[in-house]
Amino acid sequence: MAAYELFYWPGLQGRGEFVRLAFEEAGVAYRDVAKDGSVAEVADGFGNVDLATPPFAPPFLKHGKRVIGQTAAILLYLGDRHGLAPKAETGRLWTHQLQLTIGDVVTEAHDTHHPIASRLYYEDQMPEAKRRAEDFCRQRMPKFLGWFETVLERNANGRGHLVGARVTYAELSLFQLVAGLSYAFPKASRRVLQKTSRVAALAEAVAARPRIAAYLASERRIPFNELGIFRRYPELDL
Amino acid sequence: MAAYELFYWPGLQGRGEFVRLAFEEAGVAYRDVAKDGSVAEVADGFGNVDLATPPFAPPFLKHGKRVIGQTAAILLYLGDRHGLAPKAETGRLWTHQLQLTIGDVVTEAHDTHHPIASRLYYEDQMPEAKRRAEDFCRQRMPKFLGWFETVLERNANGRGHLVGARVTYAELSLFQLVAGLSYAFPKASRRVLQKTSRVAALAEAVAARPRIAAYLASERRIPFNELGIFRRYPELDL
Repeated sequence: MAAYELFYWPGLQGRGEFVRLAFEEAGVAYRDVAKDGSVAEVADGFGNVDLATPPFAPPFLKHGKRVIGQTAAILLYLGDRHGLAPKAETGRLWTHQLQLTIGDVVTEAHDTHHPIASRLYYEDQMPEAKRRAEDFCRQRMPKFLGWFETVLERNANGRGHLVGARVTYAELSLFQLVAGLSYAFPKASRRVLQKTSRVAALAEAVAARPRIAAYLASERRIPFNELGIFRRYPELDL
Repeated sequence: MAAYELFYWPGLQGRGEFVRLAFEEAGVAYRDVAKDGSVAEVADGFGNVDLATPPFAPPFLKHGKRVIGQTAAILLYLGDRHGLAPKAETGRLWTHQLQLTIGDVVTEAHDTHHPIASRLYYEDQMPEAKRRAEDFCRQRMPKFLGWFETVLERNANGRGHLVGARVTYAELSLFQLVAGLSYAFPKASRRVLQKTSRVAALAEAVAARPRIAAYLASERRIPFNELGIFRRYPELDL
């Protein structure tokens, strides 16, 4: 049995995908409980009835006795173990800082279709969603991707990389962010990516890495859909 | 001159306050540039014209050659250096996980008054704010504080503490979260805190710690106001 077990909602990429990409690039075996486990096992895992350190929400990782929640914390942990972040403190923390900022964009992308409440349907918050999506497409997406463009531009140690000259989990995550934005907002993201060509090139380079390419072509990659964070609602692509 | 310089917006607690509380509890000198520096210095710092690793947004910390953005990353860094988190990996990561979850609540609390766009005035998004605040007060606040209550309940190693038997930066942050929610939503937070008495007790215990008490009574503590994350708009206290 794989040493790592990933717990996440079944049937969507969501925040679990950032963890999956790290496992795939590292070539590390993991058990994806939502896919390989029973419904009861997922529910049990989510309950965490007796756990002293219960995660607030999925995704979370079980590794031996450890249970780690929060996407960025999971990646911090895996990055150390599988060469997906620098070992030196400054680079390690910078990689984490990039990941936390990607996490901020992910939350904002989610809130374009759920600006009022996650527990309500999109259909119950459509006028609000349209207002929020317009701000996201016209202001936030350019600002965030523009910042990553600047980071790429200023990295003197590795052309085409965010941190030094090697791939990190933050780079895998930026690929996933670009893929998600391109799915959800094809028009707006194209407009922004034309002005952030380094970001676009990095996303393509990650997608072409042998293990990532194999993963994306496999059945393990759940297609984007309207259950996830990045949803294609054409009326929100502004 | 202090080794640490904190850059944040002037005139509000905001996310900078989580960093200030860590400095105050650790008894570490820091220069609060928004308060002690010139406007030009703040603007310069925010521009970070030449920095290879520019922070996306304040708060950020300068320490020697290091510039660290993202509140949780700053606290991870300070926690290691000033005894505000366990040294062992599991406890260190658990503390960080708690902080990241507090960060999620902070974002949601902010979005109660800015559910559409941060760059717009509250007055331009009041109906949406009221809907979002109702969900926050009735669903999200109880869920989040209930989770912290469970964490406190299950910590067999230190009654009244989140992690082990010592104060951590996550504990200081939980105090700040409770203080902020109590300011912004006096009615809703009272209702929730009556059912999460361990959380309420922890917040009181942190406020009574000698260095924190001295800080809160000092002029260094900026009062809560309607520029910050936690804003008192009575119509949103549901």
